[in-house]
Amino acid sequence: MSVIECIPNVSEGRRPDVIEACAEAIRQAHARLLDVKADESHNRTVFTFAGAPDVVRAGALALFDAALARIDLRQHSGEHPRIGAVDVTPFVPIEGATMADCVALARDVAAEVSKKHQLPVFLYEEAATSPSRRNLEDIRRGEFEGLEAKLKQPDWKPDFGPAAPHASAGASVIGARMPLIAYNINLATDRLDVAKKIAAAVRQSSGGFRYVKAMGVELADRGIVQVSMNLTNFEKTPIFRVFEVVKREAARYGVAVLESEIIGLVPAAALTTSAAWYLQMDGFSDAQVLENKLRG
Amino acid sequence: MSVIECIPNVSEGRRPDVIEACAEAIRQAHARLLDVKADESHNRTVFTFAGAPDVVRAGALALFDAALARIDLRQHSGEHPRIGAVDVTPFVPIEGATMADCVALARDVAAEVSKKHQLPVFLYEEAATSPSRRNLEDIRRGEFEGLEAKLKQPDWKPDFGPAAPHASAGASVIGARMPLIAYNINLATDRLDVAKKIAAAVRQSSGGFRYVKAMGVELADRGIVQVSMNLTNFEKTPIFRVFEVVKREAARYGVAVLESEIIGLVPAAALTTSAAWYLQMDGFSDAQVLENKLRG
Repeated sequence: MSVIECIPNVSEGRRPDVIEACAEAIRQAHARLLDVKADESHNRTVFTFAGAPDVVRAGALALFDAALARIDLRQHSGEHPRIGAVDVTPFVPIEGATMADCVALARDVAAEVSKKHQLPVFLYEEAATSPSRRNLEDIRRGEFEGLEAKLKQPDWKPDFGPAAPHASAGASVIGARMPLIAYNINLATDRLDVAKKIAAAVRQSSGGFRYVKAMGVELADRGIVQVSMNLTNFEKTPIFRVFEVVKREAARYGVAVLESEIIGLVPAAALTTSAAWYLQMDGFSDAQVLENKLRG
Repeated sequence: MSVIECIPNVSEGRRPDVIEACAEAIRQAHARLLDVKADESHNRTVFTFAGAPDVVRAGALALFDAALARIDLRQHSGEHPRIGAVDVTPFVPIEGATMADCVALARDVAAEVSKKHQLPVFLYEEAATSPSRRNLEDIRRGEFEGLEAKLKQPDWKPDFGPAAPHASAGASVIGARMPLIAYNINLATDRLDVAKKIAAAVRQSSGGFRYVKAMGVELADRGIVQVSMNLTNFEKTPIFRVFEVVKREAARYGVAVLESEIIGLVPAAALTTSAAWYLQMDGFSDAQVLENKLRG
């Protein structure tokens, strides 16, 4: 069995009937709706659903139908930047599916919704057609209000659909990426400077690991500090390597690691590959996991 | 979803039609048949199947029907000790099922087959009704040929069914146990004495960990030695602890660990708990594994 996750961000976080209509569209397509997080001040809702590729495809298409019928960006305001009614839709490989499968699914859904709704669609991250379109922020710059002018630039011809905004739904960004892991390491000290120095050492933006975002924060109620991270590609920058480097950097300041924690969900492979690394299991294969065999 | 594994050992390893009839009975019950290993010299076949408790129950009952209709131990010989046509049937908790669930299932199946077939049944390992019945070897001592005399002893009154052998099928041993993990650690040395000393240090029989069986063996073709182990309860004697102690013992002889390996299948939890230990994730819960949530 192959499982892909889809996490559409929809530009409606205030009208419960619209949010429920979107959720119901996903359920009706027989996708497994794992989470719905609406934010009123952002005026935005994040849906998380998963299933086999064809089910996730149907869920995504149904969501576009439901959202575009109910959301008019000309009447939309909120704190979060957005370019469209269904603002951004990443597909994430979970199990028995590759990144290439997710890129193919993103292109397929992009082709379908652009045609059906006359909607301009940009492909992003792993599905991007050029390096300048990898980052969501670059595509979204100018937002809905600047979209008409942006689409007229030769550099910003959409990957699918017309080079003009959909009147009420704007444009949409669809793509493929690895699952995110929210990962924190707590240090046995109250020295915030140490947490900040370690965060700077491991994050990409200041010379650290490519797929790490990190900051040092204080947990005042516990009298300790934390290196708070997002791991954006656990296959290329694995948890165990980040943990070991943070531990080593902390030791250099005479500080011990108290514990680490994953916030929310983590793909099993991020943990089984960590176990295989520590246990020096060079020949280990995911096919040896009993649960994978049961479902293979 | 809850998954239990069942690994019946049947006293027939030579007649393909009988082996296939047993396999087909399991399949017809909609259980997932994962493996069939027939051994001609042992004249014995090990079936591995899994599924939800009710499906596994149906599979086990169907297997008893199929095997007892076709196997006559009065005509059976082989190198492996055996007491019955369906010699031994362990139930193993895999996912969303507890050992108590497997003990209950073992008792349930024992009650059913003893009644239907007038078959004496002993409960063993975690399902045993007294310490003297925990070990399969103790129950099986005397084999089919000595069964009539054994059943007459007050100590060996069966847990279910009559205190007399089934004419053709003997008796059966049914129970519950943890999954076995076949785990080897290869050492960067050709000194067999070191592997043997380490095996002695970690195995229960000579004072080591309670749920470890171990021996030191030579891998002559690679010019190295191996500590070859069976871990019989990875929850109580976890992989990481065994690995760390073997590594420490090896270091004491100036020897490094080259690699470790799992032979065959391993439950995901044996690896995720190892990752959580090394990464110091005190608050980690299996419910955080994305795949578990998908199937929860």
